[in-house]
Amino acid sequence: GRRIAEEVGLGQRISTAMLTAFFRLTGALPFAKAVQLMKDAAAKLYARQGDKTVEANLRMIDRAADTLRQVEIPASWMQADRGEKKAAAEDDYFHRYIQPILEQNGDDMPVGMFNPAGLVPTATSRYEKRGIAPMVPQWVPERCIQCTMCALVCPHACIRPVITGNESVPEGVITVEARGKELAGRRFRIQVSPYDCTGCSNCAQVCPAPGKALIMHPFDTQRHEGDHWEWAMSLPDTVTETCATIKESQLRRPLFEFSGACAGCGETPYIKLVTQLFGDRMLIANATGCSSIYGGSSPTCPYAVNEKGHGPAWANSLFEDNAEFGLGMHLAVKQRRDALAKRVRATAQNTKNQALRQACEDWLGDMEDADGSRKTGERLRSVCQEVGGQDAEEILRSGDLLTKKSVWLIGGDGWAYDIGFGGVDHVLALGEDVNMLVLDTEVYSNTGGQTSKATPPGAVAKFAYGGKTTGKKDLGRMAMTYGHAYVAQVSMGANPSQLLRALKEAESYPGPSLVIAYAPCINHGVSLANTQTEMKRAVECGYWTLYRYDPRKNQPLTIDSKAPAGGYREFLMGERRYAALTLQDEKQAEACYRQNEAEACRRRRVLEQLAQVTVDTESTQM
Amino acid sequence: GRRIAEEVGLGQRISTAMLTAFFRLTGALPFAKAVQLMKDAAAKLYARQGDKTVEANLRMIDRAADTLRQVEIPASWMQADRGEKKAAAEDDYFHRYIQPILEQNGDDMPVGMFNPAGLVPTATSRYEKRGIAPMVPQWVPERCIQCTMCALVCPHACIRPVITGNESVPEGVITVEARGKELAGRRFRIQVSPYDCTGCSNCAQVCPAPGKALIMHPFDTQRHEGDHWEWAMSLPDTVTETCATIKESQLRRPLFEFSGACAGCGETPYIKLVTQLFGDRMLIANATGCSSIYGGSSPTCPYAVNEKGHGPAWANSLFEDNAEFGLGMHLAVKQRRDALAKRVRATAQNTKNQALRQACEDWLGDMEDADGSRKTGERLRSVCQEVGGQDAEEILRSGDLLTKKSVWLIGGDGWAYDIGFGGVDHVLALGEDVNMLVLDTEVYSNTGGQTSKATPPGAVAKFAYGGKTTGKKDLGRMAMTYGHAYVAQVSMGANPSQLLRALKEAESYPGPSLVIAYAPCINHGVSLANTQTEMKRAVECGYWTLYRYDPRKNQPLTIDSKAPAGGYREFLMGERRYAALTLQDEKQAEACYRQNEAEACRRRRVLEQLAQVTVDTESTQM
Repeated sequence: GRRIAEEVGLGQRISTAMLTAFFRLTGALPFAKAVQLMKDAAAKLYARQGDKTVEANLRMIDRAADTLRQVEIPASWMQADRGEKKAAAEDDYFHRYIQPILEQNGDDMPVGMFNPAGLVPTATSRYEKRGIAPMVPQWVPERCIQCTMCALVCPHACIRPVITGNESVPEGVITVEARGKELAGRRFRIQVSPYDCTGCSNCAQVCPAPGKALIMHPFDTQRHEGDHWEWAMSLPDTVTETCATIKESQLRRPLFEFSGACAGCGETPYIKLVTQLFGDRMLIANATGCSSIYGGSSPTCPYAVNEKGHGPAWANSLFEDNAEFGLGMHLAVKQRRDALAKRVRATAQNTKNQALRQACEDWLGDMEDADGSRKTGERLRSVCQEVGGQDAEEILRSGDLLTKKSVWLIGGDGWAYDIGFGGVDHVLALGEDVNMLVLDTEVYSNTGGQTSKATPPGAVAKFAYGGKTTGKKDLGRMAMTYGHAYVAQVSMGANPSQLLRALKEAESYPGPSLVIAYAPCINHGVSLANTQTEMKRAVECGYWTLYRYDPRKNQPLTIDSKAPAGGYREFLMGERRYAALTLQDEKQAEACYRQNEAEACRRRRVLEQLAQVTVDTESTQM
Repeated sequence: GRRIAEEVGLGQRISTAMLTAFFRLTGALPFAKAVQLMKDAAAKLYARQGDKTVEANLRMIDRAADTLRQVEIPASWMQADRGEKKAAAEDDYFHRYIQPILEQNGDDMPVGMFNPAGLVPTATSRYEKRGIAPMVPQWVPERCIQCTMCALVCPHACIRPVITGNESVPEGVITVEARGKELAGRRFRIQVSPYDCTGCSNCAQVCPAPGKALIMHPFDTQRHEGDHWEWAMSLPDTVTETCATIKESQLRRPLFEFSGACAGCGETPYIKLVTQLFGDRMLIANATGCSSIYGGSSPTCPYAVNEKGHGPAWANSLFEDNAEFGLGMHLAVKQRRDALAKRVRATAQNTKNQALRQACEDWLGDMEDADGSRKTGERLRSVCQEVGGQDAEEILRSGDLLTKKSVWLIGGDGWAYDIGFGGVDHVLALGEDVNMLVLDTEVYSNTGGQTSKATPPGAVAKFAYGGKTTGKKDLGRMAMTYGHAYVAQVSMGANPSQLLRALKEAESYPGPSLVIAYAPCINHGVSLANTQTEMKRAVECGYWTLYRYDPRKNQPLTIDSKAPAGGYREFLMGERRYAALTLQDEKQAEACYRQNEAEACRRRRVLEQLAQVTVDTESTQM
């Protein structure tokens, strides 16, 4: 299938070939008739994508029937064991739940087996080891500049920088001297997990090293890296004190890995980065949409834990109430931490133990600071364990609340711009300290490509087959009208540092924050080998503007992307969601494209005006 | 009650006196005990409004008990007829439905009597003639400058300019020479309906004539004007060709009259004006709230009809779906008019009758123009009636659709800013030709004074007893982000001409329009004798900015109110919703007031920046 697809020019799209094989093998219809029906259907189905696509599909049908050959299944497969799931060996949940479900025996499991509250452990997607990538990246140590961009952009967290000290490494594992003052004297390696890789090649594509330090190779040549990955995962977590650079962020363990997202997904790298920054103290309310599917595909969970066992707590709610759902998480944490603070305050007053009093006071002073509360919280915990007594025990009982939590409301544009917007707006208005991450694919992705209020003019989508005629809603600017909300637009491939900065600012802002992330999607009709390039092009031509609105500043709005450099039309034409319209109605298409660009211009001009506004932060902050 | 209230300084608030009288007369409790309980309750209840209010209430309790005197009911009342409801004499609906319900006999009416679709006739509030005003305005002809401001601001449409020709007028009815070129040779009069007046005195308050051309007098002295009103209502409607001035608008018959709104209501004058401009072709979707109560209080309806029997069609939906509900009305009309246009087009092609063909073509050319479609529609109707035949009959069957409709989505801030905002936003996004009027009282009025997202910082409301600490949502600026929506902020008492202009622009704009009207309310803790003055003060000090955003213009945003003239704090302190906070917590109050003003400053500054933005209307309009 793949070979034929490449021959006829359809890249990785093998469905027509597989369909042909199905009819050839099953005889569900007389094959000649099936071929005719498939050809008629292909002509109709792909008409909007142009003659080339139609012809390629017709050729594929012809070729597929000819190239079929029988594969002999080796007798040894009858005795094949269940594969190499070493990591799972000691996990009872894997054996009792995941394995039976993955083996399609879930129907035999009685309801009573499951946790009545619906709780399931996280960090289980690592057991799947699907091995679905035909091509996986091979690291070329001598070319690597150790930028870790490959790790940043990987949608599935299956390529990671590894730092070792003087410990011995397995045979065949190459390491190089780690660059950077902080890593002086240590060794560096880029480790790929071939069994988790989906083969999107984004890592190789963004690699800035001359000649590329990552080259895509057939899976079989990289299979042995599976063992190296197991070794790398057994190393202790690299803990970076600060997280000022992309590299520092990528040395941290991602707490979101091996999800079921599409190869090259534009959404997952954002979520992964957020977990690297705040994952060990995160609570996530996830709206319906792609992120709720790849975020919680039974029986495994891609949200993971660090070596201390800390990681995101995750739950999914509806399109229409996810912001409210996440607000509830935040209010519950706030209420419980307030009660804890009251108890710690009372303990500081009542105790005669100097160390306990000091630990209590230190924590109270730092409880709203992420790093501070973690450090003073650890100290308070250990003092309480030493001292004992009723007060100390009560504090220990609420020990999970010592570190400040980071509450995130995550979803796509279908949630934030459309069905859940009323709640998003309400949460923005209330001023509470929650963070929202909008993965903006400009279309309902998971539900099948329907137009949303984030869809720009001229894009072809369901419910807008003739190209959307109304503008893209400006969610960020709406949020900015509140004045008390942190708002940013980001695009990883265009400016990863701006993204990092925006996420950190958003999280540290003690009020509502909204980060809107540009996310290419298969619905755009682009190759997701180029996800990061699309992100970059969108910003360069002015289609997507990067900015940060920080209410803490006197001049709150900063525009982070340069004036458009041209190439707007080329950008649109590079995506089938737009290009398809010219094939339908050239005049309408032309009008839509012009509207699309004119609106981007207007948005930029308005932002430039707003960037000049100064505010008196003293009196507007409550 | 009223006399005591005035004596002790409580204005028109008689509830404490009436409560005292109740306990004195009924003996429900030993009276001394009742007095003590009432005094304790008053001290607690009014504590937030200051010592003066508490003392006034205590004095009222003492005074009320002393001043009670028995009223002898004249024997003649036993035979009293049902009052003078001349207008209703020939209305079967009045006799069968309204009268029994008003007489509290509604429970005896079987369900089967009512229209199964829930339809009721409009123009029935005129039958109530409640006669509830202790004081009503008397017109002083020699001082009147014929500006008609009194008619504009009257919340209940019970004071109107009357234009007569040479016909004789009843005895005692004074008319003066009508001013203005268009009215040359005709006579003018201001007619008051004492039985419909609620005594708010807004008319007298806004009268700009030196020495005032309207003076409030006791009801009994004006009772005779009831007959004059009947006569005035029997005159033919004054039809003005254009509606360029407030005076022209007020010569038109209001199609919203005598509602059950509070005396001095800040909302109803807006609705009344809209009906004077577009009422004969209006469909209204009304959200839950005050406007749904006074707009549809069974058994009567304040929406009325002109002499042709044309007037608004009105229906009420929920807080959460009114925008969608109104959008549905619009889409239904659009669909039906498209079908009519198709038929008219076919008729023009098929007919051999030259007059019919011409009438069809004329209407097709003008069908999207309000006045044009009315004129060409009337011509088409009469030609169809003359010509006859199947095509003509089909057109006549859809005769109600010939005049372009004006669809209005009306509600308060609880609807538009809060519970129904998701729908308001969605309707704005879709780009359809509907008009939204938001009556912004900055609080949930009808449901009992709860805080909404329109409530500004420092206002005391339910769920914000300690003063609201978050900002007022900027609904207008959010709507402006679409670029394709007409948006205006208006305040009748501040600039009636700007209001008139905004309403006409909004209605004529062939896309979504949003008009946000500042509406003082009893919940603000102001005397509603000063409704129009409050509207004016709010604008003068910069609390409320007037603007119009018209997507048809190259520079879409125009700010219509001058830079703030000072007096911001005085404005706040003049309203109990704000002033109450100082009594609770002076420091918090001070912070809130400063935030309130700082936010108004920021809003103004942002608007000034946005007013500089120019757009290429050619390419953004689809």
